[in-house]
Amino acid sequence: MPELFQVLTVAQANDLLAQHGVRLRRAEQVPVMDALDRVTAENLHAPVDLPAFSRSTMDGFAVRAADTYGASEGLPAYLTVSGEVPMGRAAAIEIRAGEAARIHTGGMLPAGGDAVVMVENTQQLDERMIEVMQPVAVGENVIPVGEDVRVGELLFAQGHWLRPQDLGGLAGVGITTVPVMARPRVAILATGDEIVPADQEVAPGQIRDINSYTIAALTRRAGAEPVLYGIAPDRADTLRQMAGAALAESDLLIISAGSSVSTRDMTAQVIGDLGRPGVLVHGVSIHPGKPTILAVAGGKPVFGLPGNPVSTMVAYELFVTPTILRMLGCERTQAWRTVQARLTRNVASRAGREDFVPVRVETRADGMLWAEPVFGKSNLIYTMARADGMLAVPLDLAGLYAGDIVTVRLF
Amino acid sequence: MPELFQVLTVAQANDLLAQHGVRLRRAEQVPVMDALDRVTAENLHAPVDLPAFSRSTMDGFAVRAADTYGASEGLPAYLTVSGEVPMGRAAAIEIRAGEAARIHTGGMLPAGGDAVVMVENTQQLDERMIEVMQPVAVGENVIPVGEDVRVGELLFAQGHWLRPQDLGGLAGVGITTVPVMARPRVAILATGDEIVPADQEVAPGQIRDINSYTIAALTRRAGAEPVLYGIAPDRADTLRQMAGAALAESDLLIISAGSSVSTRDMTAQVIGDLGRPGVLVHGVSIHPGKPTILAVAGGKPVFGLPGNPVSTMVAYELFVTPTILRMLGCERTQAWRTVQARLTRNVASRAGREDFVPVRVETRADGMLWAEPVFGKSNLIYTMARADGMLAVPLDLAGLYAGDIVTVRLF
Repeated sequence: MPELFQVLTVAQANDLLAQHGVRLRRAEQVPVMDALDRVTAENLHAPVDLPAFSRSTMDGFAVRAADTYGASEGLPAYLTVSGEVPMGRAAAIEIRAGEAARIHTGGMLPAGGDAVVMVENTQQLDERMIEVMQPVAVGENVIPVGEDVRVGELLFAQGHWLRPQDLGGLAGVGITTVPVMARPRVAILATGDEIVPADQEVAPGQIRDINSYTIAALTRRAGAEPVLYGIAPDRADTLRQMAGAALAESDLLIISAGSSVSTRDMTAQVIGDLGRPGVLVHGVSIHPGKPTILAVAGGKPVFGLPGNPVSTMVAYELFVTPTILRMLGCERTQAWRTVQARLTRNVASRAGREDFVPVRVETRADGMLWAEPVFGKSNLIYTMARADGMLAVPLDLAGLYAGDIVTVRLF
Repeated sequence: MPELFQVLTVAQANDLLAQHGVRLRRAEQVPVMDALDRVTAENLHAPVDLPAFSRSTMDGFAVRAADTYGASEGLPAYLTVSGEVPMGRAAAIEIRAGEAARIHTGGMLPAGGDAVVMVENTQQLDERMIEVMQPVAVGENVIPVGEDVRVGELLFAQGHWLRPQDLGGLAGVGITTVPVMARPRVAILATGDEIVPADQEVAPGQIRDINSYTIAALTRRAGAEPVLYGIAPDRADTLRQMAGAALAESDLLIISAGSSVSTRDMTAQVIGDLGRPGVLVHGVSIHPGKPTILAVAGGKPVFGLPGNPVSTMVAYELFVTPTILRMLGCERTQAWRTVQARLTRNVASRAGREDFVPVRVETRADGMLWAEPVFGKSNLIYTMARADGMLAVPLDLAGLYAGDIVTVRLF
């Protein structure tokens, strides 16, 4: 079966997945206070102007700008103070020609006023009279109605990943409950006769389940909900039955595949039998992670991730994360989790495949960020635990040089 | 009161805070499956070797390496296949001179064997006999006991921020419950006669509470637990009573200060009265965010953040996030949330203060990351909602030029 499939590049493989892309339609209402890192399910428009009234940005005096024209320290404008604007209420005062009203930052500009003179540019003559030593233009030191957002304006498009400032922005226009995409339910199924649950004692030849933990956490980071379906033995009938049951209850299935060639082929066969169109890609031109299986079955994405812990993370970030974001309708840029750093040493690679090298990132005395390769086999989980992220050596390069600026994808 | 305090740089202010640093001591045990983004409360050592047995990294034959020395395609070594290593169990076989045992990736190396020959380098002659066409060295294609981690080795130091691969690593050595720092309880108190809860209708002169939402989300991101204490009016006695009650129940208090000069001074006074040593810094050489108040009262950090939404975020990220990480004993590098990008246009600044400019980050057709300044007043929350992060113009520069490579702190 695998020989039927050409080895594709990362971009080709993702394009193929995107063509069979599945967009989830399930939305739910959540309080804005709990909506951090959720994705909007609708376009959100401003129900009101923000601010709803003209506000002062300074402590000073609300005035008619025309009354201050030509004012200077030598020849100040004299204005009569007719009162004070209370915070949080409309001023009962109206500013007429030759008048001013004391106002605080955030206070509502009274009727008749069209600018605010900073207190620093005034002199108090007596209880009723001030000198204005500098002119102000109309609108100066004032936020007009709707300057932050106008009623009806698009606040956030559907598919927007909500950040702290976005929650503040929603609160500001009185939106305290927000329609977000339901978190896709991601089924995780480990396989392998040698794998035992992590809380179990291991007998000789057995190894604890590492990948279910890593995959579950990566799933949470991607904005989805992991659901564990245990460990399947290396038997096609049992694997088929467990995978089918897991997929039926979920939006996406990840099989953490056995690492031997025979179990990989079995995994591909079982995935192929889950539904149409079946396996799209079996083998990607990356290292580690080459034997990754990408499939769609009955409209749901299915992934066979290589059993090695490092390969698992590489393949997850390259293929599963973008798929989950597509399901959420989210255009979130990959820029979020990358940094540029300078490479500490040469890294060899093989042209014709994209090599991923675990690195530790640190700020050195020169103030620069440096990326230090962590050498270790892809079957060792602590290779990744000792790393901060991975750098990619592009397909067409035979390596990178010490001192090169590289992009590190952080884990 | 403010005139007593010198305006400090960000580094000076953080140094002062660190000197009065408070380290939380509360730990709790959580399942590793739920420990993503928690911080370890103890040094964690490996209770076992990983792997606990020598494993094959290839599909092939377990052999004695010496039996393959000198083997070539022209002159292969002939070995007798004595059996197959089952997955997940110790092999009952012992490899003697001239023998080989079929083994799969992840299988346990049988007694007597010291290397694995890849199946690609063998030829099956009959049911019992193979030809080996390439020699292997001792240990080749084998992960020895403890190569991933050795029993007793330090896995993660106290204060380590747990990531997906770390959870996998803990599971791998059988640690399924982990001691983590309790999340610091962060009290958030908004102030201002003009501020009303976000779910309430606004009358003229009133504005909805934006900052409690933004601050709560930033607090979650920093690894702490936000607790809202509502909105205090601009009255010293009420503010003092509400702030005191909030601080008594919490590990850290944030007062989202009123924006007028008079309420700022009141906030500083109330914070100063909360406990010793009181206000450490009132005014930092940043823009926006200058009127930030940093204090420690009775061993707990207290922050008076400026009322403007943009200033709030800047001051939070510069001072509150590092304080929370110190409370957790976490050395997490700030590199996590920054990217390097090329500036799209000139940005003017004033020497002698660190200017923070909201920017939108995008990958352009040239494949580079570009930072486009989002111009907008610091009192507008949508200035931040339209931005992806902020760049800092250093203290001693009068600006940055289009094309400069800048570091963007992502929000």
